[in-house]
Amino acid sequence: MAFLKNVIARYQELRLDILAFNFVSYLINWDSDTEAKAGSLEDRSIFVGRLNEMELRITRSKEYIDIVNTLFDNRDNLDELLRIEITNVHKEMEKNLKIPEQEMINHSMLMAKSPSIWATAKLNNDYNAFKDTLKELMNFNKRFIKYLETDELKGYDILLDNFEEGMTKEKYDQFFDLLKKEIVPLVKKINEKNKNYQTPKFATLDYPIEKQKEFAAYLMDVMCFDQNYGLMKESEHPFTSGFGTHDVRVTNHYYVDNFVSSIFSAIHELGHATYERANDEKLNFTFLQGGTTMAMHESQSRFYENIVGRSYPFWQRHYPKLQEVFKEQLIDVTLDEFYRFINHVTPSLIRTEADELTYSLHIMVRYEMEKIMVETDTPVEEYPKIWNKLYYDYLGVEVPNDREGILQDIHWAFGECGYFPTYALGSAYGAQLLNQMKKDLDINQAFGSDNLSMVNEWLKKHIHQYGKMKKPNELLIDATGESFNPEYFVKYLKEKYSKIYKL
Amino acid sequence: MAFLKNVIARYQELRLDILAFNFVSYLINWDSDTEAKAGSLEDRSIFVGRLNEMELRITRSKEYIDIVNTLFDNRDNLDELLRIEITNVHKEMEKNLKIPEQEMINHSMLMAKSPSIWATAKLNNDYNAFKDTLKELMNFNKRFIKYLETDELKGYDILLDNFEEGMTKEKYDQFFDLLKKEIVPLVKKINEKNKNYQTPKFATLDYPIEKQKEFAAYLMDVMCFDQNYGLMKESEHPFTSGFGTHDVRVTNHYYVDNFVSSIFSAIHELGHATYERANDEKLNFTFLQGGTTMAMHESQSRFYENIVGRSYPFWQRHYPKLQEVFKEQLIDVTLDEFYRFINHVTPSLIRTEADELTYSLHIMVRYEMEKIMVETDTPVEEYPKIWNKLYYDYLGVEVPNDREGILQDIHWAFGECGYFPTYALGSAYGAQLLNQMKKDLDINQAFGSDNLSMVNEWLKKHIHQYGKMKKPNELLIDATGESFNPEYFVKYLKEKYSKIYKL
Repeated sequence: MAFLKNVIARYQELRLDILAFNFVSYLINWDSDTEAKAGSLEDRSIFVGRLNEMELRITRSKEYIDIVNTLFDNRDNLDELLRIEITNVHKEMEKNLKIPEQEMINHSMLMAKSPSIWATAKLNNDYNAFKDTLKELMNFNKRFIKYLETDELKGYDILLDNFEEGMTKEKYDQFFDLLKKEIVPLVKKINEKNKNYQTPKFATLDYPIEKQKEFAAYLMDVMCFDQNYGLMKESEHPFTSGFGTHDVRVTNHYYVDNFVSSIFSAIHELGHATYERANDEKLNFTFLQGGTTMAMHESQSRFYENIVGRSYPFWQRHYPKLQEVFKEQLIDVTLDEFYRFINHVTPSLIRTEADELTYSLHIMVRYEMEKIMVETDTPVEEYPKIWNKLYYDYLGVEVPNDREGILQDIHWAFGECGYFPTYALGSAYGAQLLNQMKKDLDINQAFGSDNLSMVNEWLKKHIHQYGKMKKPNELLIDATGESFNPEYFVKYLKEKYSKIYKL
Repeated sequence: MAFLKNVIARYQELRLDILAFNFVSYLINWDSDTEAKAGSLEDRSIFVGRLNEMELRITRSKEYIDIVNTLFDNRDNLDELLRIEITNVHKEMEKNLKIPEQEMINHSMLMAKSPSIWATAKLNNDYNAFKDTLKELMNFNKRFIKYLETDELKGYDILLDNFEEGMTKEKYDQFFDLLKKEIVPLVKKINEKNKNYQTPKFATLDYPIEKQKEFAAYLMDVMCFDQNYGLMKESEHPFTSGFGTHDVRVTNHYYVDNFVSSIFSAIHELGHATYERANDEKLNFTFLQGGTTMAMHESQSRFYENIVGRSYPFWQRHYPKLQEVFKEQLIDVTLDEFYRFINHVTPSLIRTEADELTYSLHIMVRYEMEKIMVETDTPVEEYPKIWNKLYYDYLGVEVPNDREGILQDIHWAFGECGYFPTYALGSAYGAQLLNQMKKDLDINQAFGSDNLSMVNEWLKKHIHQYGKMKKPNELLIDATGESFNPEYFVKYLKEKYSKIYKL
């Protein structure tokens, strides 16, 4: 097979070129989000456009397309890793090629301005200033659906499948119906119990940012984050970035009057980072490196943030350190008071500030909105009203304005539709993994040790090492013995919060 | 000329691709030098190699070469800016094409390892571990000279011309002979006077780094550095970077026991930054953006650092602020004591720590070394001995080891030969500019105002705005009415230091 060998060699060259552009894109975004000055961004966008074009010149070249097709046709003669990679690449390519180039260009032109139109509209609480752009964005999604439709997949399912292969409206509906049935009433009950809740005094004190950074650094050690291959920086919104297993970066944001925010952001982002770091090294310099899907990535960050990071054993071990760092503020606060505070449930307006229990209800609102936006002709003017009603139905809160309502998230302005549901899915994956982990490990010990190496090892063995080699459901079946099953999530939430709220 | 119009359009496209790669290269280096973790650098080097190759694929393509040649042949029909640019690009290209591709590849393979071989040798004070690499590096330089030789230019002149067009051994010899005649004896006299010098107590105190940063931020304002387009960060060695007039970045380094280091590094780097920022905006997205040569760039940073930043009027205005920031340390120190301290002359071993007066003598050592290394067959084993003798002859100091001797600088390990002399040239350019500036401005007022806007404006008008549109000598003639004349530098140094040392 000298012929195939040559094709593979050329594929590897082109792959390295594409990966080099992806690396560049990572670094430019990292710089833009963490330190580039506003005045430099306009010039930069011209270079970014040019680099994207150069990358497209490769991925849309006849040579590359022929090579991928050839390797796909000969996939049974490839080694396992390359076979999986080519299968993924081929599928993505087939999809991309169905979308006319002019449509892609128009789309990226819209993308170049839509986030800033959204940002201004949000700042001014002015939905009217965004609605035409939103309509255009959703029309793009509708056309993309048309290009990508197959006999099996239609409508919103196309977008859902884009973000999480195999997930459909039917499956999400089952999942969210279960949440409606079990979690919405639970939240109502808790609301009743919360009527006389008063924010504890320690939560309203000032926590010096330098001290918060000190504790975030401590958490890096607790999570075994190797700083020879990674770093933590600051940005407006915390995020995780990097490239390959040897360069993994997270950011954090510190609020002097909200010290728990930086703690849970750190754990969340370090959760993402742990996934990336624990990929098998053989996946570096391939398209199989990273998390298998957004939902699985989010499942890992939320596993660390909520299941571990808001657990009692975790704070049993680390609360003394927190008290030591914030002597003045926490001297009189017991572990139980602190634990109760970080697990306080309160239906709210803003998704990113939601607690573990109500978070999925925020996602349900967006899921229902997206169904309406891409599958119906409902006028864009009516969206805010629908949004507000969904918030009232699921969370029992009244939305006072669009800034805290339909304008709160950037995702749609980024053209992302079908992405939100994966956030809730991620939490549910985590609960299913926890159920299995409990059979293999002493959870109190794993969560309550000096560091989280036991948790890391378990997740590496079952999830992290594989990168994109296995699909989420494959990972779940191999790790837990069954397909995705949302019952575990409901069970986990009901047990935890019934106990906390003595229901 | 529809034909020419099409050629120009295509040239502009390819130029933008090349500039995009240059932008990427700037950003990768910035990240590597300021925050990337050691563990990430190996993977990164693979992408860097790949990106360089992609850029070479453009600049060495038949299409690009043909276009540049065509435009060069038609240069009289181009507008001024493009004519100048194409003339520069064509000259560079002709030079590059004389060097066989295999030689370039071998060179970059050597470059990939030589800096780390040098670093290890320096760390271990082990010249033997570096000497073979140094020999290889100098052999490359010797071969490059052969490739590039013309009827007019031969030998070391080729390398000198590479870094500063028009400069030759003959001209540098005149310059350095003058320094030998005038400055070497002056330094000797000062040495005599310094015999009983004792470092003042305030210079040995601790200066908290946060306070040093506060004063560096103050200096950004003094130098009118617009932080919407630039930033100051930390790195092991201070440097200036950026891309175009809208993204200019400097770094600084803070030593708790050497507070003046961060002050003069800040002024020096902000001097480079001021040059970049003040380029005419029309030069952005062309190859004419930036400083015209290394020497002219260095002349600007040294002008700000030494001529302005170590002047009496400057500190008359800003010393009270410095005292305010370092109340404890400087309360009893007078302006005159501080001024005297920052202008203290002491022949030393390390170039980067040299004072304004002796700095050029350090450069002379390297200049003489380079002549020997590229124009003779002197065995590499003898270099340290020669280095040490030159230090004794010019500076009167005994070199105790190679780490503080011939191994101190990274430049040769980077393959740079012919670069050092431009450092001294830069200082001399500055003095010639000062001589003219004094005719146009009230220097006491310009240096001693709240900010340096008068200085900035004068330099922008005569130097900065032009980017690479004019060669250094052209700039000097237009600004001062004459070609480069080292007498101004000698005059400036003798006047300043005779006064300080009451000679």
